[in-house]
Amino acid sequence: MLAEIHEQPAALRRLLEREREFAEVAEHSVRSGKTLIRLVAHGSSDNAASYGVYAFGLLPGWTALRDSISLTVYSRAKIDMSGSTVLALSQSGRTRDVVAYLQRARDSGAFTVAVTNDSASELADAAEAVLPLSAGPEQAIAATKTYSNTVAALALLAANAAGRGAEFAHGLSAVADRLETMIPELESHAAELAVSFAFVGRMFVIGRGTELATAREIALKLLETCRVAAEPMTATAFAHGPVAALDALFPVWAIASHDNRDAVREAVARARAAGAGVVASGPAVELLADVSYRLPTPEASPPLLSPLLSVVPGQLFAWALAHAKGLDPDRPVGLSKVTLAQ
Amino acid sequence: MLAEIHEQPAALRRLLEREREFAEVAEHSVRSGKTLIRLVAHGSSDNAASYGVYAFGLLPGWTALRDSISLTVYSRAKIDMSGSTVLALSQSGRTRDVVAYLQRARDSGAFTVAVTNDSASELADAAEAVLPLSAGPEQAIAATKTYSNTVAALALLAANAAGRGAEFAHGLSAVADRLETMIPELESHAAELAVSFAFVGRMFVIGRGTELATAREIALKLLETCRVAAEPMTATAFAHGPVAALDALFPVWAIASHDNRDAVREAVARARAAGAGVVASGPAVELLADVSYRLPTPEASPPLLSPLLSVVPGQLFAWALAHAKGLDPDRPVGLSKVTLAQ
Repeated sequence: MLAEIHEQPAALRRLLEREREFAEVAEHSVRSGKTLIRLVAHGSSDNAASYGVYAFGLLPGWTALRDSISLTVYSRAKIDMSGSTVLALSQSGRTRDVVAYLQRARDSGAFTVAVTNDSASELADAAEAVLPLSAGPEQAIAATKTYSNTVAALALLAANAAGRGAEFAHGLSAVADRLETMIPELESHAAELAVSFAFVGRMFVIGRGTELATAREIALKLLETCRVAAEPMTATAFAHGPVAALDALFPVWAIASHDNRDAVREAVARARAAGAGVVASGPAVELLADVSYRLPTPEASPPLLSPLLSVVPGQLFAWALAHAKGLDPDRPVGLSKVTLAQ
Repeated sequence: MLAEIHEQPAALRRLLEREREFAEVAEHSVRSGKTLIRLVAHGSSDNAASYGVYAFGLLPGWTALRDSISLTVYSRAKIDMSGSTVLALSQSGRTRDVVAYLQRARDSGAFTVAVTNDSASELADAAEAVLPLSAGPEQAIAATKTYSNTVAALALLAANAAGRGAEFAHGLSAVADRLETMIPELESHAAELAVSFAFVGRMFVIGRGTELATAREIALKLLETCRVAAEPMTATAFAHGPVAALDALFPVWAIASHDNRDAVREAVARARAAGAGVVASGPAVELLADVSYRLPTPEASPPLLSPLLSVVPGQLFAWALAHAKGLDPDRPVGLSKVTLAQ
């Protein structure tokens, strides 16, 4: 897992070599008018899909939804998808119900695209277009570099749909350079911090906007590798109930960016008032008062790419916390790399 | 809270008196071709929206999404909504960002509908059509009868869009009758069970399909009234990570219905293998082996209405567990009835 966290800059650069293919897929959606984007995925890929909702909404102004797989595959709803592009996100390309969804979507008229780390997979075979994640083989059960590359793939696709492909490709290349220096610096900092959390059993992870994906992904890493009941949520959802559960044994992780800082600041203040410790990460950490621990990350240019940087403290923290808890982050209990659950 | 749980049959019957208005709104969406349904809500209303995704997908075969409020209101994405109907769900009709979303959606061409318990609210004023929840004043901070009536409202609207309004109105009337006898029976059963959970601090609540809404709502009741870190998820998401966090101190609540039983059965087996206690509720409880506690509820006719019955054990359990924990379910710490967070 740690090796793959460090491989993220190289993985991003490999993705950028395939830029032309992203432009072609975006052109096809534009030309055919299939501009309702249906994202289907599980686990980390589904967390990246939360980012896609924002990338497509903010760049080409398209509606993107994380579609219900079970509605189409198990409940067999008959939905007209002739105006839709389906982006099926699966590292392995072998997730059964994602493949089944894609087949049905294709039958009902959608333009189907597999975004996968295995271009020879069943999912790639079933789709009309394949966008290779190009992350290189991922061995760790907890996804890291394939999560980042899925986020980057969605950014690149949405940017191309908005005629801003070159700008975003340039931005992603700069993000790769930034990650190269940032990861080693953050590694020791996250490890020091993790020691204090050795006995934590539950956490809330709060994000908003493009950083909701980051919150979901950090929470999943904590669940998978540290057995912490970490629940991700928006700053708004936090105020609608969960804040009632907080106490001093229930820390909160907040991801602060410039476009969400007011909502996150309010959430942090409520958490502190309830006696909860707060870890803050992201590009607007400096603007939060009364935070127990800070793991700042730079803002990317364009800022929409910042989530590629802000997820890294969470990845490194989860890896270090697993060790602090006496767990092996490379061998999470009860999980396997490809989940074949129905 | 307990009084309002008991008021649910009466509240449902009041909603049915307004059936004609639901038919008119559905007709307007059909006639105008505004068949992409955007559901916007927070808290319990957003949980009901999860049900709406299924009701519209299964009945008229329309795509419904729980839209991101922050994307439109805070990030100011410019999305063409001319093919959309917006259903803004808010008990109070005073949730600021839901009102702001509806105003922007109306400007961008959507047909806007307020589904609210206060027809004189700001939300109702801003919308082109108003569907009154008709639940009567709700005093408790933890929503119960307004949740049920929002689910029923979405069922009625989707059924009318599919030309099945009369059938579903009849079904809802039968559900009201069933609730009348079921609630008192379940009340003492849930209270006995709650005693064993007095020291539980975290739970997963698993649903799927139409019962995902139920899982989300039960988890929120447990958070709000019992300060339990209860995280809702689909049976599939459960297998993709969270299962790693389970142990004997981390019970699971599973909602089993006939259309989700295989996935939920698999999830329950994994929870039991990890040593976690399991509470099962819903219409297919009998089909689960090796469950610690059972709170069965009948299947409704049509079955799509079953979530109106299966949420009740969770409402009653949350109320009783708050008492078992020495908390007052009518005065949750740190919450207010109308959340005005940004």
